[in-house]
Amino acid sequence: MKPYVEMTKEELQELRKELSAQYKEFQGRDLKLDMSRGKPSAEQLDISMGMMDVLSSSDDLTCDDGTDCRNYGVLDGIKEAKELLADMMEVAPDHIIIYGNSSLNVMYDTVSRSMTHGVMGSTPWCKLDKVKFLCPVPGYDRHFSITEYFGIEMINVPMTPTGPDMDLVEQLVAADDSIKGIWCVPKYSNPQGISYSDETVRRFARLKPAASDFRIYWDNAYTIHHLYDNEQDHLIEILAECKRAGNPDMVYKFASTSKVSFPGSGIAAIAASENNLTDIMKQLKIQTIGHDKVNQLRHVRFFGDIHGMVEHMRKHADIMRPKFEAVIETLEKELGGLQIGEWTCPKGGYFISFDSLDGCAKTIVAKCKKAGLVMTGAGATYPYGKDPYDNNIRIAPSYPTLPDLKQAMELFALCVKIVSIDHILSEIA
Amino acid sequence: MKPYVEMTKEELQELRKELSAQYKEFQGRDLKLDMSRGKPSAEQLDISMGMMDVLSSSDDLTCDDGTDCRNYGVLDGIKEAKELLADMMEVAPDHIIIYGNSSLNVMYDTVSRSMTHGVMGSTPWCKLDKVKFLCPVPGYDRHFSITEYFGIEMINVPMTPTGPDMDLVEQLVAADDSIKGIWCVPKYSNPQGISYSDETVRRFARLKPAASDFRIYWDNAYTIHHLYDNEQDHLIEILAECKRAGNPDMVYKFASTSKVSFPGSGIAAIAASENNLTDIMKQLKIQTIGHDKVNQLRHVRFFGDIHGMVEHMRKHADIMRPKFEAVIETLEKELGGLQIGEWTCPKGGYFISFDSLDGCAKTIVAKCKKAGLVMTGAGATYPYGKDPYDNNIRIAPSYPTLPDLKQAMELFALCVKIVSIDHILSEIA
Repeated sequence: MKPYVEMTKEELQELRKELSAQYKEFQGRDLKLDMSRGKPSAEQLDISMGMMDVLSSSDDLTCDDGTDCRNYGVLDGIKEAKELLADMMEVAPDHIIIYGNSSLNVMYDTVSRSMTHGVMGSTPWCKLDKVKFLCPVPGYDRHFSITEYFGIEMINVPMTPTGPDMDLVEQLVAADDSIKGIWCVPKYSNPQGISYSDETVRRFARLKPAASDFRIYWDNAYTIHHLYDNEQDHLIEILAECKRAGNPDMVYKFASTSKVSFPGSGIAAIAASENNLTDIMKQLKIQTIGHDKVNQLRHVRFFGDIHGMVEHMRKHADIMRPKFEAVIETLEKELGGLQIGEWTCPKGGYFISFDSLDGCAKTIVAKCKKAGLVMTGAGATYPYGKDPYDNNIRIAPSYPTLPDLKQAMELFALCVKIVSIDHILSEIA
Repeated sequence: MKPYVEMTKEELQELRKELSAQYKEFQGRDLKLDMSRGKPSAEQLDISMGMMDVLSSSDDLTCDDGTDCRNYGVLDGIKEAKELLADMMEVAPDHIIIYGNSSLNVMYDTVSRSMTHGVMGSTPWCKLDKVKFLCPVPGYDRHFSITEYFGIEMINVPMTPTGPDMDLVEQLVAADDSIKGIWCVPKYSNPQGISYSDETVRRFARLKPAASDFRIYWDNAYTIHHLYDNEQDHLIEILAECKRAGNPDMVYKFASTSKVSFPGSGIAAIAASENNLTDIMKQLKIQTIGHDKVNQLRHVRFFGDIHGMVEHMRKHADIMRPKFEAVIETLEKELGGLQIGEWTCPKGGYFISFDSLDGCAKTIVAKCKKAGLVMTGAGATYPYGKDPYDNNIRIAPSYPTLPDLKQAMELFALCVKIVSIDHILSEIA
């Protein structure tokens, strides 16, 4: 196909008519497709239904160490669950705390605690005039919502194919002691599916922040969420790397089984240095008597160990892989060579990132919506919902069925074409 | 029995010898009894084991409104669970939010949110020079720990047989706008088992606090935790009463099923006015995508409705009642008429409160411990762990078996006698 920018005004206008007719046809289908969030599909949820059978009234809900999971207590999680999640998170079991059902909640609580009580003895952030976070962009909207909610100023740091622009990160954290954190999704990032390179991780571990209470918020949400068996991204483990670099306390690592077992009914965890864990436990013991140990035990009994979990993730991959491939095939087929968009081809995670021509993302998403396809709001991948280029759109292929997804992506590509033509025509005019 | 104070020095010394011999005998038994916390016994946990069977892989985990409980979403709880807990909490379903496993966590988060974001638009408490809470005493140590953790000054308000001293409460909240809350366990209070009288509840609803962001923290932990079928305390419902009194926003009501189903694996909730709920939801949507809906559904399927829950609580009562009666019988038999202690006789809840002679509680608890009986730490029922009279001891009869409990209470009474004699002798000397 000829790139749109090389087409004449007349050619574009002609094409526009043709595409409009196609769009009208789509509107006539009365579609209701939701690709707004990284929700697993019903088919994926089905593969975890065995979770409902591993604990019955005839089972003993007691841990190896004698803990009755039904009763109060055990603030940091049962030993068996710590072992399972430690393997998933590639850390030692004594470096993690098991929480409730949501790693987002753990991250929120981590920021909230820092606001009211500081970090390992530092001044509570609410007592400071200014607190800032670095935000690799595009990134995860719910991260940005937390920092925005607490009035923390967010500074955009561009993502590169190897992770955040580390020159900029190094320079900013060294120069400004009001910068207290950085949001990272280091593996199969949200939304681009980028995994940080070895050099990026090494440079993270060797940051020299001006603030002693600066922490890397390492949200390893997709740590075992590969699409392929033989092509998997591998990251240097950040806790160990920080320790080697003499910065053992500089990172909090977060993860959960939300996209392994059931979203909303999984178990979440934080991994950190002993100093950080001691600091966290001081607060946690005030906040709760303990999290849901029966659900922890349920996970342990269902997965057995990390091998069981990896086997389970293969089943997720078998469902997700065709969807990712369908998205990329459709984009390639419909938009390849047109020079009106670029997209990523991740090897795992939950998202594909699409960059339209500058200034077109909002209009594309709105146009999709008018034909019954809900995409993640344009701008959502940037702090304050403000994409300075208005070009980034997050594609979440997991929730729709494969036939629905193919239809949705055809509609999406169609909207990209129409909006791009309008944009090019308006620039010619 | 003759009151100890009427005995001669010689009589007391003689008795002391006898009791010491008994104490030595107890020490020889190598006891390991724990009455420190309000933990349900294994027998109580067993009656909820049916919870493990109500959801299996062949069940549909879908709500009536089509919500798939396995997936993300539904921030305020599934409709069925709201109905169940609304009935338990005696409010309308649209006035509650369902949380995770711990009402303590909900209370912590409520205070934490007020610190960072204020209450319905008020100045965040962390920006104020001074924030104070009223604490009816004796009270629940974990309440006091939350306010202490946030640097909130705690003011003791004496409990009376009808609830907190309302003259004092009214006077204090009207006079001081730095008083932002009061901790209440209004029904079968911790530790005394006192239920607030109708007049007390009415006066609560008609408080005229100087601070617009003053809230009553109404922890209705034992709302359906009766010991008897025919002798049950009944409270005026506080939300409705506040509304009638023109103070609809003045109260947060908390509850959970921790001592109904499984501690640690129950579901918790807050009930409040629409204004308060709107304020809370603004924060909650940042903190999490949703709580564990599968566990909410599990509770709904197990209990069916409030009648099922009430039936279930009868089974708890059948286990708890003999324990409460054993404690009170032993105290009556061993200490009745000696004038060295007083105790409460609650009709529900988890605790009995014991008042020793002033200045004796710590020594009694320490003496119990040396013979293998762990009681709640003396002082724990007061803010900062400081009982100004050193006389209050919380008795938690739920966890031990009945034979163990009887033994424990004999040991306890023995320690009370010995320490009281020492105290009286030291005053004679």
